[in-house]
Amino acid sequence: MATQTEEFLRNHPRDVSGDIETLKTCVERLAACAQACLACADACLGERDVADLVRCIQLDLDCADVCTAAERVLTRRTAPDIQLHRILLETCVRYCQECARECDRHADMHDHCRLCADTCRLCEDACRQVLARVA
Amino acid sequence: MATQTEEFLRNHPRDVSGDIETLKTCVERLAACAQACLACADACLGERDVADLVRCIQLDLDCADVCTAAERVLTRRTAPDIQLHRILLETCVRYCQECARECDRHADMHDHCRLCADTCRLCEDACRQVLARVA
Amino acid sequence: MATQTEEFLRNHPRDVSGDIETLKTCVERLAACAQACLACADACLGERDVADLVRCIQLDLDCADVCTAAERVLTRRTAPDIQLHRILLETCVRYCQECARECDRHADMHDHCRLCADTCRLCEDACRQVLARVA
Amino acid sequence: MATQTEEFLRNHPRDVSGDIETLKTCVERLAACAQACLACADACLGERDVADLVRCIQLDLDCADVCTAAERVLTRRTAPDIQLHRILLETCVRYCQECARECDRHADMHDHCRLCADTCRLCEDACRQVLARVA
Repeated sequence: MATQTEEFLRNHPRDVSGDIETLKTCVERLAACAQACLACADACLGERDVADLVRCIQLDLDCADVCTAAERVLTRRTAPDIQLHRILLETCVRYCQECARECDRHADMHDHCRLCADTCRLCEDACRQVLARVA
Repeated sequence: MATQTEEFLRNHPRDVSGDIETLKTCVERLAACAQACLACADACLGERDVADLVRCIQLDLDCADVCTAAERVLTRRTAPDIQLHRILLETCVRYCQECARECDRHADMHDHCRLCADTCRLCEDACRQVLARVA
Repeated sequence: MATQTEEFLRNHPRDVSGDIETLKTCVERLAACAQACLACADACLGERDVADLVRCIQLDLDCADVCTAAERVLTRRTAPDIQLHRILLETCVRYCQECARECDRHADMHDHCRLCADTCRLCEDACRQVLARVA
Repeated sequence: MATQTEEFLRNHPRDVSGDIETLKTCVERLAACAQACLACADACLGERDVADLVRCIQLDLDCADVCTAAERVLTRRTAPDIQLHRILLETCVRYCQECARECDRHADMHDHCRLCADTCRLCEDACRQVLARVA
């Protein structure tokens, strides 16, 4: 089923280069990752062992900021700059990796950390797909 | 099917008050609305008649900023302030209404404006549901 | 001395209505407030008594999101909608008030909370000035 | 004179490593750059020759998103990850360079493009200073 993101890409007045399927998956997963990171940071803040989750909260917030920036940049297709997209996606890959690694450390204790780690890895993979095929 | 947003709400360490279904729909539609507004602003920028779309682009960007703020605030459930949520959701309702109205004016010409207007109205409705039932 | 914000307002191609001085002060204080709230949230996260600062951290993050949205919206002068600006500034006033009140509770213990409360109040005042004179 | 950013850095509960002066200049210039890029994008939108400024508007918006993300990430000092900071600052350097280059092309015609190009270059320089001395 075509998602909203795909419909916008297909209705763009300028020819959206490359593989729309790969691109829309990446935009959607960047948005999902930012959401998951913010939700995980907030849930961590509500845990009794919040003092042990400080690095997790900070990486969640950092990863959310970087993924949100990338989601917004990749959404803009009117005059895209492929070289700039590449460096931004590579930055996302690194933040997602590190955030997933930190969340993994708490995944046995906290379901929100397990969910967040999974979402980060899906996002990392989607960024790599764009780097391999589109950007 | 439970979405990611719903899973995070259900796994939150503090008791998430009220109607989780209504809340998750609102968070998801706020995110979708911000995405649609940014995509519409960018598509408008790529149109030949961009000079006629200046107010549409500006309202798109404004509405995206307000919906993104609300999405992030509503995601935080650890110490929510219902009165503050209400005033923020009422603000969203107004931005979504006005953005939909402006996009409607270009909907015959541009599919992205039609899509964006529809998404704004779904978001407006979801904010009203939370105002009526939860916040 | 003219600040960067003032220079951009004075160089805008469309006639920026109303009192530029009041407007630029508001944009600058919204930016300063968002920055202070993010810095306070992070400093709270590094305190030994982080568990007592959970509501403060959440209000800081919420207030930062709302002020950032307002800063961005007020910066856009090409086709401003005064009624929408008013409702958004009134929302900011409420978030700044509540965030200042919470930070005040920790101001004796933590200088960052005292600084943040002061910055929220300056922002609240600047929003009220725009509501009274410009928007 | 100590700025607000510097006061927050000096009042942080954890030892802020490295050169606070260099760090605060970078955070302040990232914020100023994001502000300038948003103001320039909006002013471009109000120009008669908006159709010639489409790439400038898009790069402005992209650069603002990346600088805002970096400003927020660098503000968090509780558990900073230097390697991640480095890759994000290098990304900022690239966006600021490209945005300044595009704004330069319109600087004779539009003062806001000249102002924005200058602000991007100050930001680029501040990011490089952190890369050389702190991060």
